[in-house]
Amino acid sequence: MTEGIEVVTDPDALMSVSRDQAPLAPGGTAAAFVRARSIVDVQRTLAFANEHRIPVVTRGAGTGLAGGANAVDGCIVLSVAAMDRILSIDAAGRTATVEPGVLNATLARAATERGLFYAPDPASREISTIGGNIATNAGGSCCLKYGVTGDHVAALAVVLADGTLIRTGATTRKNVAGLDLTRLVIGSEGTLAVVVEATLRLLRAPRPPATLVASFARLVDAGRAVLAMETVADLSLCEIMDRTTVTAVDRMTRMGLDTEAAALVVVQTDDADAAAAIDTCARACREAGAKDVMTTGDRDEGVQLLAARRAALPALEQLGRTLLDDIAVPKSALPAMLECIPVIAERHAVVIGTFGHAGDGNLHPTIVFARGDDDAARRAMLAFDDIVRAALAFGGTITGEHGVGSLKRDYLTAMIGEPERALMTRVKAAFDPRGILNPGKAI
Amino acid sequence: MTEGIEVVTDPDALMSVSRDQAPLAPGGTAAAFVRARSIVDVQRTLAFANEHRIPVVTRGAGTGLAGGANAVDGCIVLSVAAMDRILSIDAAGRTATVEPGVLNATLARAATERGLFYAPDPASREISTIGGNIATNAGGSCCLKYGVTGDHVAALAVVLADGTLIRTGATTRKNVAGLDLTRLVIGSEGTLAVVVEATLRLLRAPRPPATLVASFARLVDAGRAVLAMETVADLSLCEIMDRTTVTAVDRMTRMGLDTEAAALVVVQTDDADAAAAIDTCARACREAGAKDVMTTGDRDEGVQLLAARRAALPALEQLGRTLLDDIAVPKSALPAMLECIPVIAERHAVVIGTFGHAGDGNLHPTIVFARGDDDAARRAMLAFDDIVRAALAFGGTITGEHGVGSLKRDYLTAMIGEPERALMTRVKAAFDPRGILNPGKAI
Repeated sequence: MTEGIEVVTDPDALMSVSRDQAPLAPGGTAAAFVRARSIVDVQRTLAFANEHRIPVVTRGAGTGLAGGANAVDGCIVLSVAAMDRILSIDAAGRTATVEPGVLNATLARAATERGLFYAPDPASREISTIGGNIATNAGGSCCLKYGVTGDHVAALAVVLADGTLIRTGATTRKNVAGLDLTRLVIGSEGTLAVVVEATLRLLRAPRPPATLVASFARLVDAGRAVLAMETVADLSLCEIMDRTTVTAVDRMTRMGLDTEAAALVVVQTDDADAAAAIDTCARACREAGAKDVMTTGDRDEGVQLLAARRAALPALEQLGRTLLDDIAVPKSALPAMLECIPVIAERHAVVIGTFGHAGDGNLHPTIVFARGDDDAARRAMLAFDDIVRAALAFGGTITGEHGVGSLKRDYLTAMIGEPERALMTRVKAAFDPRGILNPGKAI
Repeated sequence: MTEGIEVVTDPDALMSVSRDQAPLAPGGTAAAFVRARSIVDVQRTLAFANEHRIPVVTRGAGTGLAGGANAVDGCIVLSVAAMDRILSIDAAGRTATVEPGVLNATLARAATERGLFYAPDPASREISTIGGNIATNAGGSCCLKYGVTGDHVAALAVVLADGTLIRTGATTRKNVAGLDLTRLVIGSEGTLAVVVEATLRLLRAPRPPATLVASFARLVDAGRAVLAMETVADLSLCEIMDRTTVTAVDRMTRMGLDTEAAALVVVQTDDADAAAAIDTCARACREAGAKDVMTTGDRDEGVQLLAARRAALPALEQLGRTLLDDIAVPKSALPAMLECIPVIAERHAVVIGTFGHAGDGNLHPTIVFARGDDDAARRAMLAFDDIVRAALAFGGTITGEHGVGSLKRDYLTAMIGEPERALMTRVKAAFDPRGILNPGKAI
């Protein structure tokens, strides 16, 4: 098909690149795997696929959590992971231009070495690519203060389905020339175009944060404390873990966490007067009924306090198979959403460990069930469904930061509406008239 | 056409709603003027226009600076200015839902009354509408820290060309369900849909800022000082005025400004330790060769120091007819761009007063020429052209915050490229297959 491009058709090799990290998300069987090493490789692959109407599923590191990178039957899986160079960093202009396969953490470290800061920090940052972060508009803990991935993308180079290379955006801070194609591609999960280059914004290095950890006897109090803290301080991080999660983390790490508490809340601020701000937060937690509050202005101690939160998903995965949800609700609905999850767990007789970015109202209720137990898997799906519908009932979203992928496609019309979905389909056709790019995903 | 809707066809009345604030931008003659009072009015008007293939130019307050709201021949001018209610403010969730005709300043005051903050602050905020701000993705002085209008829009209700009402986005802080239609509509200058409702994000009220004013003997030093300050402090505002502008302001206001300086720079920070941050900025200005530096931690004094900057455009307008440009360059190119403008002024024997949002690299070189002097008008256009092309040569954009409208359409392909423009046209067709919405503008 495409001379000089690395193409694999061995079924075992194809299996290894046909799924992301969402085990229960629908997926199919790929026909071929292409490892692109240049923009031209991507262009030639897409032009060939478009001519022959072959579906193309683009893939970075495959760390997605919604099946967005799952193969569809007969597709080419196109990996851009080998396009992994940082092309340039403009320290004065505070931008970095990178290929899509660069790992988030690699860019973050390169920025730090220059005294700058690449803010977006999905939990997967050590293993996920910038291209994948852009495709899903990935979030993370920093979003509360610094915004999501899309808030840090200045310009893109993308290849359309027919192989045309286009450039979107500008490296200036403000630009309103024409339609915002950059934002349209961000979060489109590979359905509009393949990102082959990105110019990202870097920030001044933040000040060292002060950190607070508070435990609560009741979930609803934890939710209320989050709301209260947000009205009295500018937080740079606000995370929550419920008892199931804390217990799993403590079992794995032996950190000596408070496994009696209904929830732990971890908060940071990198304000100029961080110590005073975190004291204000401590008062707000006590007023909201916190059992115990601990604060520190020491950066390393802060990292240790956050380590428990970072271990949440790995710790839950040690308990069995997991089905990770990703919903967000308007902040004022956070206490009610938190209270609703244990009720759903009981209804379907499943274990749910909830953790997430409380300050953004973005939770990851994670259903844990025994491997090989089909009835438990069925009940897990029912609980998953109830959680998504509860989020919708609270005026929330079916996905805060992981994407729709193949996992949540059935909820999309309920979320956005029928004419809206039809419009998205027409917009996709403007990019990809033959519908070869990641068909059946995202929209 | 549409029973119960206010329709005007009197030629004199039409004239008064057929232009925005860009006198030299191309425009045509409207056939009718419709004043919508409800979403249904907008839907019925568009359905009628679409059926009969009549162009529709949507209009808020008509304060645009690029001809985006200028009539096209035979069009319906559709005003949404009378849809001016604040529908709700959710203080806990920190959102406001408004109709498009609400003035920016009205919303800002309503937010302030609740202890909250609506950040986007275009200079026109007392007279421009939220709908118009969204249509142009309006900027302002706050953008340096708080971002542009689009960064504060959570969700929209818009009417498509055929009259279909759709809703985009979500009130949650994070949402990645489907394509980002919200961002696509923002800045599309009425070419995709008519915004009939917007849910906007509100922030915690900022701390009182500390303010600095510095004067420089050379423009290039002012530019360098801006870059230097940005590396040592988090600024919430960073504005510049050149000598022509300062002299015009001083003539109008008798403020006693330093009319010998090549440039004045005004900076604010609302950091927790604003006094220390502004002292750091003062040092950076002196190191960059400032003639004179003045700082204050007093809020009212800060407002007075900013008053000169706010008077820039009205003061230049007193000198003659004006042609206001709006370009942005990567920050590192700011000193060079500043130096380039007097050269252009001399080349075409015109007066150019430059002011703008220096911290964003976003400048408004304003060409002043005598009323009724056709040759001067011609030379003004040549200077305008040179300024836009210089911005492009520096890797900048043809419009930072005012939009393309009809004024800058000829530069768009040079800015974005031919395949990119073709793609935008296809995306427009997905919203507006018959091309009735603001044809010949923006894209």
